[in-house]
Amino acid sequence: MTAKDALELVKEDINKVEQFLKDDIKTSVPLINEVILYLLSSGGKRLRPVFLSLSAKMCGYNGDKIPAMSAVIEYIHTATLLHDDIIDGAKYRRKRPTANSLYGNDIAVLCGDFLYSRSYITLTEYGAKDVQMILSSAALTMSEGEVIQLLKTGDINITFDDYIQIITRKTAVLFSAACEIGGRLAQVSEEKIKALKDFGYYLGLGFQMTDDILDYMGDEKATGKKNGTDLYEGKLTLPVIKLLECVDAAEKNIITDMFSKKERNENDLKTLKDIMEKYKIKDISEKTADEYINKSLSSLDIFNDNDYKKAMIALALAMVGRNA
Amino acid sequence: MTAKDALELVKEDINKVEQFLKDDIKTSVPLINEVILYLLSSGGKRLRPVFLSLSAKMCGYNGDKIPAMSAVIEYIHTATLLHDDIIDGAKYRRKRPTANSLYGNDIAVLCGDFLYSRSYITLTEYGAKDVQMILSSAALTMSEGEVIQLLKTGDINITFDDYIQIITRKTAVLFSAACEIGGRLAQVSEEKIKALKDFGYYLGLGFQMTDDILDYMGDEKATGKKNGTDLYEGKLTLPVIKLLECVDAAEKNIITDMFSKKERNENDLKTLKDIMEKYKIKDISEKTADEYINKSLSSLDIFNDNDYKKAMIALALAMVGRNA
Repeated sequence: MTAKDALELVKEDINKVEQFLKDDIKTSVPLINEVILYLLSSGGKRLRPVFLSLSAKMCGYNGDKIPAMSAVIEYIHTATLLHDDIIDGAKYRRKRPTANSLYGNDIAVLCGDFLYSRSYITLTEYGAKDVQMILSSAALTMSEGEVIQLLKTGDINITFDDYIQIITRKTAVLFSAACEIGGRLAQVSEEKIKALKDFGYYLGLGFQMTDDILDYMGDEKATGKKNGTDLYEGKLTLPVIKLLECVDAAEKNIITDMFSKKERNENDLKTLKDIMEKYKIKDISEKTADEYINKSLSSLDIFNDNDYKKAMIALALAMVGRNA
Repeated sequence: MTAKDALELVKEDINKVEQFLKDDIKTSVPLINEVILYLLSSGGKRLRPVFLSLSAKMCGYNGDKIPAMSAVIEYIHTATLLHDDIIDGAKYRRKRPTANSLYGNDIAVLCGDFLYSRSYITLTEYGAKDVQMILSSAALTMSEGEVIQLLKTGDINITFDDYIQIITRKTAVLFSAACEIGGRLAQVSEEKIKALKDFGYYLGLGFQMTDDILDYMGDEKATGKKNGTDLYEGKLTLPVIKLLECVDAAEKNIITDMFSKKERNENDLKTLKDIMEKYKIKDISEKTADEYINKSLSSLDIFNDNDYKKAMIALALAMVGRNA
């Protein structure tokens, strides 16, 4: 199955999610409505709702809670991006101006708060207690991840374990929650719940690793994103961490100096990429991401084959650039 | 009954709230723990928990949910203050440096997000669905209030109705929610719930009005706060709105110019206070605040007299400087 076929399988659900999002915002403040609609129509791929829907359907659930639970996840995801962009001072996301650059940091902070509250109202209205706990805990963990990431910014002594801690919280918990909720809606066994959580968790890690690799070494035309954002923001991600395990003392000094500067520029990016090329960091990093995706896929062994399972596998592979 | 006697009645409950807050934070990130403890130990008077506890007890509830529900309210209240201080660029709150000035805006944004999530986890764990809905809706409304306030900053055409809209959302909804939850815990009739909501709502309005009066005309030694914060931040509150209803054309021009400047200073404050004195704005504003507190008190007529009801009345009066 191709990724395109996989998306086709949940197209109707995703349309329902889009409709739900539009109907659900409900605010008496026109500016908030405008900002939230701007954010929600940013052309995001709704990956988390896709996996929630596929997980639910793979387990035999086809009920009406998929749009509401997906909306809650998108609210939390969007609120996190909104506040991240403020912290990173980001001017663009998906080729469009960020909300903070269009409306200012103050409005962006408050619209993030609005989205968090909106998510809990919808969660209270449609979610059972277990699902409520999964998602509010995920949101808490994500804020922790952002703090850890901030504290590790520019820290050349960051370890691979630190990195896993950060991307677990930033990315993997919400994918894990999305897949778990699919299973909870279908009321499958705890063993299957564990398998879905693991699938989402490892998928999230592999996906974030791939994103971090592309940020240094992606084809800018294909990804639509400029290389080097993480470098400019002083974030040490997988390729740099892998690189630090390989370099000699002189190269380590160059990298240390680079990250201890207040700002980094395109020359720094070129220098760093040249050293990465020397040590084949792209291959090494991709191998690591692949390991996590393989763990993700093998978590699904417990489930009988069906089209939804095939779709989850196809999309997981596409997300890390395999058989895309 | 004096305000002091009133507080004595719920002292034990408030101690339990303090203990609950300390035990409930639970984060693996030491910096988040540090920031949250700093915020929660700021010497706040826990007014909302006091009214939640008094409302519950007046209605005959003395169960074990008071600390958890009070903690949720304090989390939401604290998260709101934290993000407000970022937006206002506030350097001090209650004579201590704000979290944003101590730890930076980025950490302050994320700790606010952490507190919102923490509030919903505790709410999910301890709260029934009705209480969950009350508090998540209150948090949403509060973020709307902050946006409206931001949009009305420096706007000389602000009306009294706009002002009521803002302080309803900023302050009154959470007091109203605290009192309503007291009644919900006690499972009283919808008529009594309505009375408790009204009590909290009008109390919140009267309290915020009093705070806004003190910001221009309070005794700095007694309040511990410098006059003029709202003026410096360009916020048009009750005394200015009442003043604009009285002044002549020349004075209106002075005030308009003042609020259309980028920044205002102590000379502006003196000028404005002089015009306020001419028109007896303190008396006029206090009369308005009193009207709301009187509405608040008469909402309690439906309840039989008991010590808890007397305590609520005593504290409400103290909060607007009557029989303090």
